[in-house]
Amino acid sequence: MAVLAACQVPVDIDDPVKTNRVVAEAVAEAAARGAQLVVLPELTLCGSIWRDVAESSARAEPVTGPSVAFFRALSREHGVVVVGGFCEVSGLDRPYNSAVVVDDGEVLAVYRKTHLWDTEKLHFTPGDALPPVVPTRVGAVAPLICYDLAFPEVLLDVARRGAQVVASPANWPDSDNPNTRPPEVSKAMAMAATYHVVVVVADRVGPERGVRWVGGSVICDVDGFRAAGPEFGATTVLVADLAVEAALDKQISTRNHVFGDRRTDLY
Amino acid sequence: MAVLAACQVPVDIDDPVKTNRVVAEAVAEAAARGAQLVVLPELTLCGSIWRDVAESSARAEPVTGPSVAFFRALSREHGVVVVGGFCEVSGLDRPYNSAVVVDDGEVLAVYRKTHLWDTEKLHFTPGDALPPVVPTRVGAVAPLICYDLAFPEVLLDVARRGAQVVASPANWPDSDNPNTRPPEVSKAMAMAATYHVVVVVADRVGPERGVRWVGGSVICDVDGFRAAGPEFGATTVLVADLAVEAALDKQISTRNHVFGDRRTDLY
Repeated sequence: MAVLAACQVPVDIDDPVKTNRVVAEAVAEAAARGAQLVVLPELTLCGSIWRDVAESSARAEPVTGPSVAFFRALSREHGVVVVGGFCEVSGLDRPYNSAVVVDDGEVLAVYRKTHLWDTEKLHFTPGDALPPVVPTRVGAVAPLICYDLAFPEVLLDVARRGAQVVASPANWPDSDNPNTRPPEVSKAMAMAATYHVVVVVADRVGPERGVRWVGGSVICDVDGFRAAGPEFGATTVLVADLAVEAALDKQISTRNHVFGDRRTDLY
Repeated sequence: MAVLAACQVPVDIDDPVKTNRVVAEAVAEAAARGAQLVVLPELTLCGSIWRDVAESSARAEPVTGPSVAFFRALSREHGVVVVGGFCEVSGLDRPYNSAVVVDDGEVLAVYRKTHLWDTEKLHFTPGDALPPVVPTRVGAVAPLICYDLAFPEVLLDVARRGAQVVASPANWPDSDNPNTRPPEVSKAMAMAATYHVVVVVADRVGPERGVRWVGGSVICDVDGFRAAGPEFGATTVLVADLAVEAALDKQISTRNHVFGDRRTDLY
């Protein structure tokens, strides 16, 4: 079992002190509620609605920069795994949209988003490697970022490499469809069920320079049932105690196996 | 645009006359509400909770048998495409779990389920071909059957071959999880959004020899939003008028394309 958390928090792109305070409070709440792993939104501290490419470059940092230092301090202070997002210097003309996995205050892995959404293609360089599968105190964690969840191949790949918890920082824009949860929530639930992994998505919430982030963060168990969330439109900390060890057993019925049932003779 | 329907109906495995009447009434209601395509549950008329292999063989029919004749008559009478399920003679020791696509009273295609769930492996021979993509009056229809929806490779394949409507007969057992919709509904919504296709799932509802079928049939638009359903536990006919032509355009944002965004350099 492991206690997992998603911090659904806003960003104030023009007030980093405020943003850091909100994030720190959310992580403290998660830890106080027993969380051993805490997932934060995509590009957690720096925001993402940038005026131009100059602004994205200006916000880029190395993994030794202040954003990751902040995640490391939170990890150390609260004794939790932190999965957070930051804008990473690439050495190329556009930075990476990255996520870091931190445990015991140390950086265990950096992942660079491989599937970029819309104007992200103007601001970022896509990563050139699939997500790492990172041993942590809560089991093997695979960081995915937002639109990556729309590519089942990524989930299949990390599941095959032993991922137990898919930890996904996200920024999901709100839609005007009044009738339904966002399809992104369905994708998270479906990918958990399809590949028998725990999925934790932390989405941004609230406005950012005219974009509304929907919230809808969700924690899904290995059968695709939601264990916490989604809750829309409000700052919130989701916490769930889940059997992450169940993700290592891909036998999903007496006669069905997640990988064994794939018709590799047909696709 | 096309008006699509899912008939969420029970089966009485020991009373075929009653089952046929219930199905006929549901199809008539769908047609009266404007449906041009009607999807029926998996193994629509014959049921699936069989006592032994002898019973499954006894219920097998050729495509020229009474089940498909019934679907053809409904198609002709109401001027609708019918996608229904039946137990098909295979010439092997176990029959196929098949679905047929009928338009204008004629059989356009037969699909044999390629991914079998649990005890189905005792009763059926798996099919050896992925679903056909069948031109009909409502556009290109791909019949999938139930557990096939857990394999994104199948959806990707039919989407690439031009499928606009994924029509899935299903039998979803109920779970005891009180808190949430079944993961199968999430899979339907997620697959619609991920591959930008309309998905229509017709699930069985009610008891069958001690198994409870959950219902939860759903019609999803190409963005993965539910256009009708899910409704649990009751006989119902879902109808939705959807832009099936939108499924032919895989450009999902100014800079994103369902197929083009796949990182074929990485998987």
